[in-house]
Amino acid sequence: MDITKPSLLINESIARKNIEKMLARAKKFNCTLRPHFKTHQSKEIGEWFRDYNINKCAVSSLEMAKYFFNAGWSDITVAFPLNVLEHSTVNNLAGKIKLSLCVESLETVTALNEFLEHPVGIFLKIDAGYHRTGLDADNFTEITSILEALDRNPLITVKGFLQHAGHTYQSKGVQEIDEIHTYTSKKMIKLKDHFQKQYPEIIISNGDTPSCSVSSNFDHIDEMRPGNFVFYDVMQAEIGSCNYEDIAVAIGCPVVAKHHSRNEVVVYGGAIHFSKDQIERNGQTIYGLVAESKEDGWGQPKEGWFVKKLSQEHGTIHIPEQDFSEIKIGDLIYILPIHSCLTANLMSKYHTLNGQEINMFRYSS
Amino acid sequence: MDITKPSLLINESIARKNIEKMLARAKKFNCTLRPHFKTHQSKEIGEWFRDYNINKCAVSSLEMAKYFFNAGWSDITVAFPLNVLEHSTVNNLAGKIKLSLCVESLETVTALNEFLEHPVGIFLKIDAGYHRTGLDADNFTEITSILEALDRNPLITVKGFLQHAGHTYQSKGVQEIDEIHTYTSKKMIKLKDHFQKQYPEIIISNGDTPSCSVSSNFDHIDEMRPGNFVFYDVMQAEIGSCNYEDIAVAIGCPVVAKHHSRNEVVVYGGAIHFSKDQIERNGQTIYGLVAESKEDGWGQPKEGWFVKKLSQEHGTIHIPEQDFSEIKIGDLIYILPIHSCLTANLMSKYHTLNGQEINMFRYSS
Repeated sequence: MDITKPSLLINESIARKNIEKMLARAKKFNCTLRPHFKTHQSKEIGEWFRDYNINKCAVSSLEMAKYFFNAGWSDITVAFPLNVLEHSTVNNLAGKIKLSLCVESLETVTALNEFLEHPVGIFLKIDAGYHRTGLDADNFTEITSILEALDRNPLITVKGFLQHAGHTYQSKGVQEIDEIHTYTSKKMIKLKDHFQKQYPEIIISNGDTPSCSVSSNFDHIDEMRPGNFVFYDVMQAEIGSCNYEDIAVAIGCPVVAKHHSRNEVVVYGGAIHFSKDQIERNGQTIYGLVAESKEDGWGQPKEGWFVKKLSQEHGTIHIPEQDFSEIKIGDLIYILPIHSCLTANLMSKYHTLNGQEINMFRYSS
Repeated sequence: MDITKPSLLINESIARKNIEKMLARAKKFNCTLRPHFKTHQSKEIGEWFRDYNINKCAVSSLEMAKYFFNAGWSDITVAFPLNVLEHSTVNNLAGKIKLSLCVESLETVTALNEFLEHPVGIFLKIDAGYHRTGLDADNFTEITSILEALDRNPLITVKGFLQHAGHTYQSKGVQEIDEIHTYTSKKMIKLKDHFQKQYPEIIISNGDTPSCSVSSNFDHIDEMRPGNFVFYDVMQAEIGSCNYEDIAVAIGCPVVAKHHSRNEVVVYGGAIHFSKDQIERNGQTIYGLVAESKEDGWGQPKEGWFVKKLSQEHGTIHIPEQDFSEIKIGDLIYILPIHSCLTANLMSKYHTLNGQEINMFRYSS
């Protein structure tokens, strides 16, 4: 690899193993796997999923749906509350593919009923405990009135209930993840049970990477919609969703300055490459971990090496005193991102370990 | 404006006023103004500066230097420690324009001396108290040895000493900013005094927006190199570098969900639009402030409205109970960014208030 600037590196074989493992779990639990493509945002990486006969995906915006439609994907769920201002994009895609959208208010359904020109599937976005978006899972009255409004539109098929248990990101270990998963799943199943007589085809779609990675009971859950698992990252390893060797991306950053008196080096690689997500360890805020350099990529995190501070283009790396002498100006060091979704979004392409480049989607606004 | 997705809006007249004010300050203090273009990253906005006969700029990467070179800028300082891996870009630009680079170690100078093919100016990056990068301002021995190494290369002209007092970003009010400015300036002046006999042409270049905006003594400082001031942002208003009406950019975000029970709305607009810089106010973490909507753009921050949480595409906005009823699904709300440099970097273009689009630089890696 000829890397001279901060570059997003991808280990294809790790990413493929992550896909294979998640697919095996979905099959074991009788769930459909609908991977969320907001993590990789790349039609080339989308093809890796198709190699395993995965032909449905989720995205986080209508613009991204259009990108994957143009890449040949014909069954796409936009797992984000419908933005009614983008009605022309909805009408442009609806009818051409199996497009599913999420709604969570009568106000949105009213607007949708006014502009919709072609068939779409609609999920009710449910809040089963994360409290970011969605209809309260226990509020059957409100849910019923929205279903009634949807029923009045012959272009709409009610697909079911969709949730994202994002609070698993605050957990530590399988047991804590499982507690949240069990609690939110119970709420979703109660909903499905209640409405299934009226809508025999409805499904439950669950989203978060932690529970999809490690929970062991998906009875009555129909669809898994994780995204991050294709790359994983430091946050997921800390949560317990994966091991460090499952992380499929790293940023290669050149060393530009050394400050031995405070055991720090500065790399070219900052907030515009990593974003600013962070973890805490023993009271220390950490913006990334440094991985061992290996001939064919990177290895495990190096003990005591971490990204201590990020500014626009600067990354300040703490290095243990005994390791300091091994670093030279111009070295390329491999940094495992805290949150791979935000990191990938910031970069314009992937570099594979055999020197190929993989392009990705870019927002136009 | 026909805005349907999160969009970076720019008020040109505010940005021009910010440029005019900073230029007037530079003239008053007998300083050269070399604006840092990493904030706007746009050749069109660069032209606004040229309207005031500003013809020097600073950038934060060699790639950005190339972009502004292609836009006709012929005097560019890369205010970032030289990345020796990008030697071919250095040689590509050096000699064609007045290119100045920053070094802070013998190791870097040795590499530079090996690859340099054309004339460049070199600044010694000085640490006068911020402790991110730079040579300790008091370490005359080390500074002397680097100057000697530079002197051995006839292609190199020593330009002087460059610092960024980034710790003014932690201050509150003019007095605190001034204390840092006075302290770091004193160190820089001592350096210049010491080496001026040997290098009569050397200058001091100072960088941070807070001190360039409000400090009142720039005696012996030759160059101001602020960047953020062209847009300012919430952080600068909180520091006291500007007023809220000086903020020249906002992100327009569509409302996609309302949750009255917790006085929150969710907008389409998240960490991939704002980045994750934050301020604290009364123990509350804030990721952006909502500004009044006006017919011709935005106004002051709305009392009690703020961005409470950001995930990839979601922004959760807190709205005071009494204001909740005024919000409708599909409304566009204007959010003032915490850190405009990171926000602008994330977006692909600017939208002026009269509906024009302004393109910007994009990193290729």
